[in-house]
Amino acid sequence: MVSSQGRLTFAATSMTPPGQTALDLVVRNGIIATASDTMRCDIGVHQGRIVALAERLPQAVREIDAAGRYVTPGGIDSHCHIDQPMTPPIRLADDFVSATRSAACGGTTTVIPFAEQKHGASIQAALDDYHRRAEGHASVDYAFHLIVADPTQQVLREELPRLIAAGYRSFKLYMTYPGLQLDDRQLLETLAVAKAHDAMAMIHAENADCIAWLTDRLMAAGLTAPRFHAASRPMLVEREATHRAISLAELVGVPVLIVHVSGAEAVDQIRWARARGIHVFGETCPQYLFLTAADLGIDDTYHGARCVCSPPPRDAASQQAIWMALADGLFTVFSSDHSPYVLEGKSGKRPGGDEVAFPYIPNGIPGIETRMPLLFSEGVLAGRISVNRFVELTATNPAKAYGLHPRKGTIAPGADADLVIWDERRIVLRNQMLHHACDYTPYEGMTLSAWPAWTLLRGEVIWSDGEFVGRPTGGRFLRCGAPTLLPKLRG
Amino acid sequence: MVSSQGRLTFAATSMTPPGQTALDLVVRNGIIATASDTMRCDIGVHQGRIVALAERLPQAVREIDAAGRYVTPGGIDSHCHIDQPMTPPIRLADDFVSATRSAACGGTTTVIPFAEQKHGASIQAALDDYHRRAEGHASVDYAFHLIVADPTQQVLREELPRLIAAGYRSFKLYMTYPGLQLDDRQLLETLAVAKAHDAMAMIHAENADCIAWLTDRLMAAGLTAPRFHAASRPMLVEREATHRAISLAELVGVPVLIVHVSGAEAVDQIRWARARGIHVFGETCPQYLFLTAADLGIDDTYHGARCVCSPPPRDAASQQAIWMALADGLFTVFSSDHSPYVLEGKSGKRPGGDEVAFPYIPNGIPGIETRMPLLFSEGVLAGRISVNRFVELTATNPAKAYGLHPRKGTIAPGADADLVIWDERRIVLRNQMLHHACDYTPYEGMTLSAWPAWTLLRGEVIWSDGEFVGRPTGGRFLRCGAPTLLPKLRG
Amino acid sequence: MVSSQGRLTFAATSMTPPGQTALDLVVRNGIIATASDTMRCDIGVHQGRIVALAERLPQAVREIDAAGRYVTPGGIDSHCHIDQPMTPPIRLADDFVSATRSAACGGTTTVIPFAEQKHGASIQAALDDYHRRAEGHASVDYAFHLIVADPTQQVLREELPRLIAAGYRSFKLYMTYPGLQLDDRQLLETLAVAKAHDAMAMIHAENADCIAWLTDRLMAAGLTAPRFHAASRPMLVEREATHRAISLAELVGVPVLIVHVSGAEAVDQIRWARARGIHVFGETCPQYLFLTAADLGIDDTYHGARCVCSPPPRDAASQQAIWMALADGLFTVFSSDHSPYVLEGKSGKRPGGDEVAFPYIPNGIPGIETRMPLLFSEGVLAGRISVNRFVELTATNPAKAYGLHPRKGTIAPGADADLVIWDERRIVLRNQMLHHACDYTPYEGMTLSAWPAWTLLRGEVIWSDGEFVGRPTGGRFLRCGAPTLLPKLRG
Amino acid sequence: MVSSQGRLTFAATSMTPPGQTALDLVVRNGIIATASDTMRCDIGVHQGRIVALAERLPQAVREIDAAGRYVTPGGIDSHCHIDQPMTPPIRLADDFVSATRSAACGGTTTVIPFAEQKHGASIQAALDDYHRRAEGHASVDYAFHLIVADPTQQVLREELPRLIAAGYRSFKLYMTYPGLQLDDRQLLETLAVAKAHDAMAMIHAENADCIAWLTDRLMAAGLTAPRFHAASRPMLVEREATHRAISLAELVGVPVLIVHVSGAEAVDQIRWARARGIHVFGETCPQYLFLTAADLGIDDTYHGARCVCSPPPRDAASQQAIWMALADGLFTVFSSDHSPYVLEGKSGKRPGGDEVAFPYIPNGIPGIETRMPLLFSEGVLAGRISVNRFVELTATNPAKAYGLHPRKGTIAPGADADLVIWDERRIVLRNQMLHHACDYTPYEGMTLSAWPAWTLLRGEVIWSDGEFVGRPTGGRFLRCGAPTLLPKLRG
Repeated sequence: MVSSQGRLTFAATSMTPPGQTALDLVVRNGIIATASDTMRCDIGVHQGRIVALAERLPQAVREIDAAGRYVTPGGIDSHCHIDQPMTPPIRLADDFVSATRSAACGGTTTVIPFAEQKHGASIQAALDDYHRRAEGHASVDYAFHLIVADPTQQVLREELPRLIAAGYRSFKLYMTYPGLQLDDRQLLETLAVAKAHDAMAMIHAENADCIAWLTDRLMAAGLTAPRFHAASRPMLVEREATHRAISLAELVGVPVLIVHVSGAEAVDQIRWARARGIHVFGETCPQYLFLTAADLGIDDTYHGARCVCSPPPRDAASQQAIWMALADGLFTVFSSDHSPYVLEGKSGKRPGGDEVAFPYIPNGIPGIETRMPLLFSEGVLAGRISVNRFVELTATNPAKAYGLHPRKGTIAPGADADLVIWDERRIVLRNQMLHHACDYTPYEGMTLSAWPAWTLLRGEVIWSDGEFVGRPTGGRFLRCGAPTLLPKLRG
Repeated sequence: MVSSQGRLTFAATSMTPPGQTALDLVVRNGIIATASDTMRCDIGVHQGRIVALAERLPQAVREIDAAGRYVTPGGIDSHCHIDQPMTPPIRLADDFVSATRSAACGGTTTVIPFAEQKHGASIQAALDDYHRRAEGHASVDYAFHLIVADPTQQVLREELPRLIAAGYRSFKLYMTYPGLQLDDRQLLETLAVAKAHDAMAMIHAENADCIAWLTDRLMAAGLTAPRFHAASRPMLVEREATHRAISLAELVGVPVLIVHVSGAEAVDQIRWARARGIHVFGETCPQYLFLTAADLGIDDTYHGARCVCSPPPRDAASQQAIWMALADGLFTVFSSDHSPYVLEGKSGKRPGGDEVAFPYIPNGIPGIETRMPLLFSEGVLAGRISVNRFVELTATNPAKAYGLHPRKGTIAPGADADLVIWDERRIVLRNQMLHHACDYTPYEGMTLSAWPAWTLLRGEVIWSDGEFVGRPTGGRFLRCGAPTLLPKLRG
Repeated sequence: MVSSQGRLTFAATSMTPPGQTALDLVVRNGIIATASDTMRCDIGVHQGRIVALAERLPQAVREIDAAGRYVTPGGIDSHCHIDQPMTPPIRLADDFVSATRSAACGGTTTVIPFAEQKHGASIQAALDDYHRRAEGHASVDYAFHLIVADPTQQVLREELPRLIAAGYRSFKLYMTYPGLQLDDRQLLETLAVAKAHDAMAMIHAENADCIAWLTDRLMAAGLTAPRFHAASRPMLVEREATHRAISLAELVGVPVLIVHVSGAEAVDQIRWARARGIHVFGETCPQYLFLTAADLGIDDTYHGARCVCSPPPRDAASQQAIWMALADGLFTVFSSDHSPYVLEGKSGKRPGGDEVAFPYIPNGIPGIETRMPLLFSEGVLAGRISVNRFVELTATNPAKAYGLHPRKGTIAPGADADLVIWDERRIVLRNQMLHHACDYTPYEGMTLSAWPAWTLLRGEVIWSDGEFVGRPTGGRFLRCGAPTLLPKLRG
Repeated sequence: MVSSQGRLTFAATSMTPPGQTALDLVVRNGIIATASDTMRCDIGVHQGRIVALAERLPQAVREIDAAGRYVTPGGIDSHCHIDQPMTPPIRLADDFVSATRSAACGGTTTVIPFAEQKHGASIQAALDDYHRRAEGHASVDYAFHLIVADPTQQVLREELPRLIAAGYRSFKLYMTYPGLQLDDRQLLETLAVAKAHDAMAMIHAENADCIAWLTDRLMAAGLTAPRFHAASRPMLVEREATHRAISLAELVGVPVLIVHVSGAEAVDQIRWARARGIHVFGETCPQYLFLTAADLGIDDTYHGARCVCSPPPRDAASQQAIWMALADGLFTVFSSDHSPYVLEGKSGKRPGGDEVAFPYIPNGIPGIETRMPLLFSEGVLAGRISVNRFVELTATNPAKAYGLHPRKGTIAPGADADLVIWDERRIVLRNQMLHHACDYTPYEGMTLSAWPAWTLLRGEVIWSDGEFVGRPTGGRFLRCGAPTLLPKLRG
């Protein structure tokens, strides 16, 4: 029954008197993992929320038998690009329909893509447009990061504070890419807003001038194949910008999150900073665990171009360093940086011309569906990280970083019933299995050892038995609260 | 009712048919903290175990209203010395009755003291004796660490493996103290046993020869007051041994836990090792947060002697470094190193003589009761660490390190109902409030902002309303399983 | 006699046949120090050059008795600002006449000030002007560094290569100061010229945007006193820029020299880089050994302003770190960064207004005369560095860094006879003793334990018995060769 | 002529009146290198000492034309084992006759082998014996290090201070090898003597217990081939002992020199210590530049055994790290650790038995003759280090470290005329070219680009035109003074 306070009182269904509301769903007997604990128990769901964890719950309207299976919180992909407007003819392959379908099928129940401010325009304009793109097209829940590309005084003093208060609580700042990149002064001023209003700043850390200088040299030397993309932004370019971002954050006194960290030198900077008490969080992505720069050199055309992303994948030693930093707690977040382009779009042809060269290849690879199974297989089941650390990286910490915890990111009474129930079996990854609108996966042919058996969004099954059963109207917009990664004085 | 599988089926008590078993206890409406999550819900307890976490549980036989209060797992004090036989006239002030009573009153529900092997004797002999001391005298649960002081081939090949299998799964190795200290070869051989049998090795890391050399020089110079205890074992003595312990563990390929880390130089060694992928865990204690070497210099007699422990407290910068390492995840465990001596015992008089000098002061201070309130007040409520980190340090990680998780160390279905419900109020600490058998506390006069309102051991209230209500027969011996701090391949 | 090869054959003067040339000068019996050796011998000089070091040389035309005295190479002050055109009303106090006189009296026989390119103008124009200012006004030898403020393609491709070939082989690049600062792309392009043409790049490493942001905040808060100059450019501002400069140099693959390093965090960056095999040299100055930020806070007007320079002096721990880095070989060069402004010029009054605030105080302090005696007294005689390290820092390394070695910077056959013969005595430093045109010294009242007894430029005494005896026409312009700090393949 | 003070007055020989003493020798027109300078001039020698460096010296009795050739100070091999008594049947191949002949032919004019104290005996006894072995058999100069193997109170309080005062100013302390190794307490007490009497302590840093434990495991596993020597003492064994040695030195407050550093991890410890202001010097040897552990695995018998030494050579990355540390100033000394055993002696046969295994292979390789040419060829001429750094590492610093400077280790008036004049030509190294009594060189077949043309000992040619022309009575015993690597207060 539902008490007068709107809370459920448990009762064995067999005893439920007529008219009483039973649990909507019980996930039974699973191996439930949170970021710290593993327990064997039932999960009771009512009206989309988890209302009970218990050793044995009464019969519910629907039951899922999770015996012997890991049950983890639905994934939060806090770094993905979905239907983000680009300069034509470049466009992302996925709109919200395909991207969130793909997310659901890979065990992700919340996505946080980016509403990108255009120069000379307000952020609100980008948000309005972006809400239109998302609303009614998302089969998982979603929040928005802001991309602050033009931090005018108006933006800094009025718009950002207003949007933060309205639940857009994180923004991404670029240190590279023409049209997006901010100079150090702009970074400082935007970080100061993050500090004043308790928002989370994400930083893409690569030194733009170094990249431009190297690119010009490579181009002048006729070194234009996709593999020179990696040569144009070597590790030190990322290391330098990481050190600078840390320094700016230290100066302002605000936490920052360095996105898509690719290798040891950037990891070392973060480690150094944290040992000094500077609050720097790090994110990494599957491409830095499973690809190397060699994947950009498969051939000189689109096969190599498929893996072009920024920062570029590095080498085997960097992969090792990233695994180690995942295991030892250095990284806070594991996301996909899903940026899907169809192969034709990765041709590297200069817009309006015939020239083909790496600077014209859009940066980014698909990954929203494979992120969770890749880390579960190669991280958890291969013994590199615990299942609790998996939960922390893919769900709990993203929820805390972006103000969605404890509603999202965990399995606990009160949380949304976003769940993944895992099927441990051998799978050879093929793009045709995937549900994005991209015509390739960089991980084609890789053997995994697990995939979600079911994905549940607020108690509703959206992926089951290898079939997507969600609805494009099923996802809800989430307003974000303040980050909770750091302790606060209890007021 | 209890199902045939021995699990409880929830039912509203009002609906419980005659003969059905209701919940024994519900802790209602608390702010439940685990090492990763914070949730507001009820905790249902049956036969000493937590059987449900739910938004609203039915009426139970007993109810505790925890509204607005933090509820954390009962503390595990994994480093404390209780009724450990010493060379007369030196003796510890606390036997199991007083020590576990004191633990309970401070929110600790599990203690892991040390069964110390004597030279020429078996570990089993020490265990037999120690079980006699504990049994029927403990009001909280207890497990035993072994102190391996004489690692003969018999001990290494037969006794230790047998004891590990029997649930004595951790041992402490000393790099200092005559009669206890092992040389590097002995350390390696004992660590190899830990590796082969998946036990946890704890290491007291100070360089014995350095201490002896310095002590002789200080004594020869007439520098005998208690404060010269600190001068006789400076930071580098601990740093060196920490580096050596790490190296030995690296060589064997086994995790180790460095106990009672006191300052930045040892922290740096652990940080360095972990960044290289070496599995080194660290423990610290309240004395390194709240005392400094200056506390050994209050006067030249017993006032200074009260704070003599090893490693000695350092300086304000070290305190800061320890706080930072607590906050950033470097430390795994926070324990008391409770080693209570009455003030008379700390006189520093040479046994059988009249000479008074620091080398004759037994090393150790009391702290089993104050550990949890100190860290809750100055860590959580002062905003230095989150409540989740508090839980991790004081309960979850000790349980994982010593093979007691998930039975102990968390609040989850299936776990023992060991709980602390906190009372946030201003308290000026006085030794007469405490329940140990020691006649002083090093923290006399300190102002705290919280203390346990209730402590529950397996569902039984043992501390309530400022009163100890446990029983010396209430504690049970715990056999420990394998450590679970690190991921393992799922077999 | 001079042989047909133009070399001197020694002969006892008593035996010199009519017409034969004797030695012009013998400095007799001194304790001769080079960067590696200390020897007691005579120095023979002919036509301005050292032609012999020998245990006993024959009588010369002129003799100096250096018995019991240290004799070191004449100092090279490779970082000093002399008669450099400024934006009126700001102007440097010293022209070449006063600055080089002051240098001579303090034991410096070569100065390398800066010819500063103006925006929109050629470097050649600056050089022409600067040569006019120097020629006939310098009583010590001089070379010029270039300041590249506007690295156009013309400058990079034609002018700089031509000037490097002509003996202007070093240039200074600013990461801060409006009108001077280069962005990262410009730094890269200019460093690439240094690499291609084997020139030495000097970098002023402070993050301009951070300084501007802090300055605006301080000004807006009314924090305008001289001491806020230090607050406007904290250590991290220098550390960040140092890391960035190192990264840019690493990318280009060219050595760089970081000028005026002020404290531990920048030192650590250099140390880190060098341990990785990156060729980064460091320079420090007396102000970082003998002043702290507190010297900017003596009062809120010009007394504090006297010590305003950039980077600002830090704290006692930084002084210690700088001393340690001087001693352990980290620093390559010790220079003055002489930038003399009369006190009135340091008033901090806004040009054309009445406002007084720290951003309007010109940055820089005098020091060309005190550099050598300060380091000799507090470094060598106080036992912090050896006399050989003193020679290396003040003469040999600057000569090698800027392509003047072995003509300058050492005491060896073939070198110019630039010598300092030291007088060890107690001196209380007073500005009225000094010979610059500045009306203060930041070191007023400091007690030194040595001062040059004689300074010799190419065999001519220019400072003797407390009297300047040089001539403004005595100094010569020096064309610089390639740097020789690093080994080269012998071609 | 020789003046009344016994010093030479130069005169053109053509002018020398009858009866006057001309220079004994002039080395003419060489490229003279000291540790800091390179100069083209003549070197004048009288009675075995350098009396003048000059642009052109008068005709001497003997002249050497060094035009176009590098002239460097005679090498000081400060780490070599010569005729050191061993436990039979093990014996060193070289006595003083062959070892010093070999040294001379490779450009080394001073050797400092070891007088090894036996347990229960005095150091004096070892010295007496060792003097007998050396006297009249050495064709280069020699000093003795002491090996302190039994630091009794008598040794520490009386014998060592007396010997230090008598010119035996350095001692080597072993952290490994049965019969030689000291425990930490003994190390501390011996280091305290070094501090009190200003002697130089050299430390062989490897952890004995780790080696013994690994060796036992390898042997038990039947892994007995020479290559397992490397497996029995991996890098961490050296790193740990290096950290410990540094810590002990820090505690005592005395400089130490870590001998034969083999790779990056030990280098990093030294770097770390020096950055903290601890005075730790490092030595490396050719085997760590030119061999790797793979050279121990050529086969399973004596071919692999040829390269068995301790620490063992590591890998290519370690070689790189050692080169980098040579270049950047980290290392202070470059010596040979010459320990020659004939191949039969390296058989690895257990004394008194038939068993063959790596622990029975004596540790050490020959190298006294090849040290200088190897570093000159691959260091100087290959552009990795400057010729000045070569001089510093092979001569000047060893002389300073062991109290022989400025008599030895440099080219300056007053120094002994110990000189090497280099011949730059292609040489394929063959053992039959060498002059030691060992039947192999580990560098067989290596191509060098230089070899000494002449070696001069105190003005006497001892190696010329590929021929040894020295005499076993030519070498003199040297009493050592205090180390001069560090600055001292001038008293």
